[in-house]
Amino acid sequence: MELEKKFFVGVIGPNNPSKKIYQLAYQIGKEIGKRNWVLICGGLGGIMEAVSKGAKEEGGLTIGILPNSEKSFANPYIDIPIATGLNEARNLIIVLTSDVIIAVGKGYGTLSEIAFALKYNKKVFGLKTWQKELPIIKIKNIKELIKKLINLAY
Amino acid sequence: MELEKKFFVGVIGPNNPSKKIYQLAYQIGKEIGKRNWVLICGGLGGIMEAVSKGAKEEGGLTIGILPNSEKSFANPYIDIPIATGLNEARNLIIVLTSDVIIAVGKGYGTLSEIAFALKYNKKVFGLKTWQKELPIIKIKNIKELIKKLINLAY
Amino acid sequence: MELEKKFFVGVIGPNNPSKKIYQLAYQIGKEIGKRNWVLICGGLGGIMEAVSKGAKEEGGLTIGILPNSEKSFANPYIDIPIATGLNEARNLIIVLTSDVIIAVGKGYGTLSEIAFALKYNKKVFGLKTWQKELPIIKIKNIKELIKKLINLAY
Amino acid sequence: MELEKKFFVGVIGPNNPSKKIYQLAYQIGKEIGKRNWVLICGGLGGIMEAVSKGAKEEGGLTIGILPNSEKSFANPYIDIPIATGLNEARNLIIVLTSDVIIAVGKGYGTLSEIAFALKYNKKVFGLKTWQKELPIIKIKNIKELIKKLINLAY
Repeated sequence: MELEKKFFVGVIGPNNPSKKIYQLAYQIGKEIGKRNWVLICGGLGGIMEAVSKGAKEEGGLTIGILPNSEKSFANPYIDIPIATGLNEARNLIIVLTSDVIIAVGKGYGTLSEIAFALKYNKKVFGLKTWQKELPIIKIKNIKELIKKLINLAY
Repeated sequence: MELEKKFFVGVIGPNNPSKKIYQLAYQIGKEIGKRNWVLICGGLGGIMEAVSKGAKEEGGLTIGILPNSEKSFANPYIDIPIATGLNEARNLIIVLTSDVIIAVGKGYGTLSEIAFALKYNKKVFGLKTWQKELPIIKIKNIKELIKKLINLAY
Repeated sequence: MELEKKFFVGVIGPNNPSKKIYQLAYQIGKEIGKRNWVLICGGLGGIMEAVSKGAKEEGGLTIGILPNSEKSFANPYIDIPIATGLNEARNLIIVLTSDVIIAVGKGYGTLSEIAFALKYNKKVFGLKTWQKELPIIKIKNIKELIKKLINLAY
Repeated sequence: MELEKKFFVGVIGPNNPSKKIYQLAYQIGKEIGKRNWVLICGGLGGIMEAVSKGAKEEGGLTIGILPNSEKSFANPYIDIPIATGLNEARNLIIVLTSDVIIAVGKGYGTLSEIAFALKYNKKVFGLKTWQKELPIIKIKNIKELIKKLINLAY
């Protein structure tokens, strides 16, 4: 496995999204998996599950940075569950491990991750997420997102 | 020292505030110190220093939750420096240890703390800080702030 | 309160000690309280409770670095509960915040704290604790301990 | 990639081992890689590098849980660097993420990890490491180690 120069894409979002937002994250996961990028996420349900499922179905590698002390809390589409035992402090690890962040939907955990990403000068792409006052790159559809990610990845 | 039922007030804000915002935080610190509430902050410079200085001048007790591994990084107005070695992950500890959060000014670290506070259902009062889209209680002046804090404290 | 040059004494030990070891920690707490040193501990039961109780009875200031997300888990003798939400990762904070470590009794959490203390070149005094192979200063009674602490504190 | 039921082997040890101990860790890494187990380690030099190098040469997947805030600190044999920014607190994550722990050589960081592993009831196999007073399974050679690991893995 040649992962040395792999592109690590962090996808963040709430654990209770609407069906529409879940579907959006699932599609983003598929695009990430197809390109053989590494998916980083929080490893639990909602957006985290949707994006892992999409990536996994396309053969991608999925990493879940869990707030829990046990790996068994990971959703079934996570290849590598990282059990931190740190509760919401694990949000920082998701951000630091990702080369770029995609925020899908709104949650306060998501907002903390956006804040950390901006603090550490990581690029944040946003779909239907917290945007006001923030230097997030607003994305309208998946095609636009993937085009921008490809520019960063290669 | 009878601290058992003390009120723990977390004050968060950037480390490079304008003079005006620094002064505002300093005045808030004085009010906290006068009432013998415990000040929780990030322990470094800027807003953290301003509020500690104010609280200390009025005889208050000041706690600094530092990102660093050494206590010596605390500003000179911190009584109890807590050396975490956790970098920005320490922001969660500031929030969890506070009974209420006051945000003064804008920074991405501040935003991460606001997000954690809302995630954990803590009340957040805001002065010249991130407010759009967020259920922060917008405060116009110190008098209004102290009145609201007194209602919570006793 | 003039705490700037206060001596921060970390006391570590298991949450299920024998009666004899509990009593020993309680006496150590009293000595710490009498001298107006700041007690740092894990904030929960067993040795943590014993030492806090002793310190508090003599008017000392007690800090509990909790593994929990809520301050309410602190034992009743803790003045300043720090809610970390980090589970056992909070052991590092206890060590980094203390100027010196006293280990009383044996537990695996205690051993992790001794290891961190040695890693960060902190002096560790031990009473009935893990000692084999480790550069811990073995202490036989409280009088000897206090004498050594006084040498470090002033 | 079918990782769902993969066996996660944590290997811990100092960053400045003797040549002999480095070589031992390298051989252990090779055995882990051959069996397609996932290697979890601290991601830096010394034992961490040795075991990653061995695993990578046999086509294994290597995860490095870094103390740093940037992935670039990982040794060149790490496939998945996890940037925690948590300094030594990251030791807990290594333990919680591993199904079993192998300690090779002696360091205080290593000792903290052994302590966490015992706290969380994980099996610890030890080669030339901290052993006195501790319920570590003492291992004499690699053959014996692998036999015991195979029993746990399948």
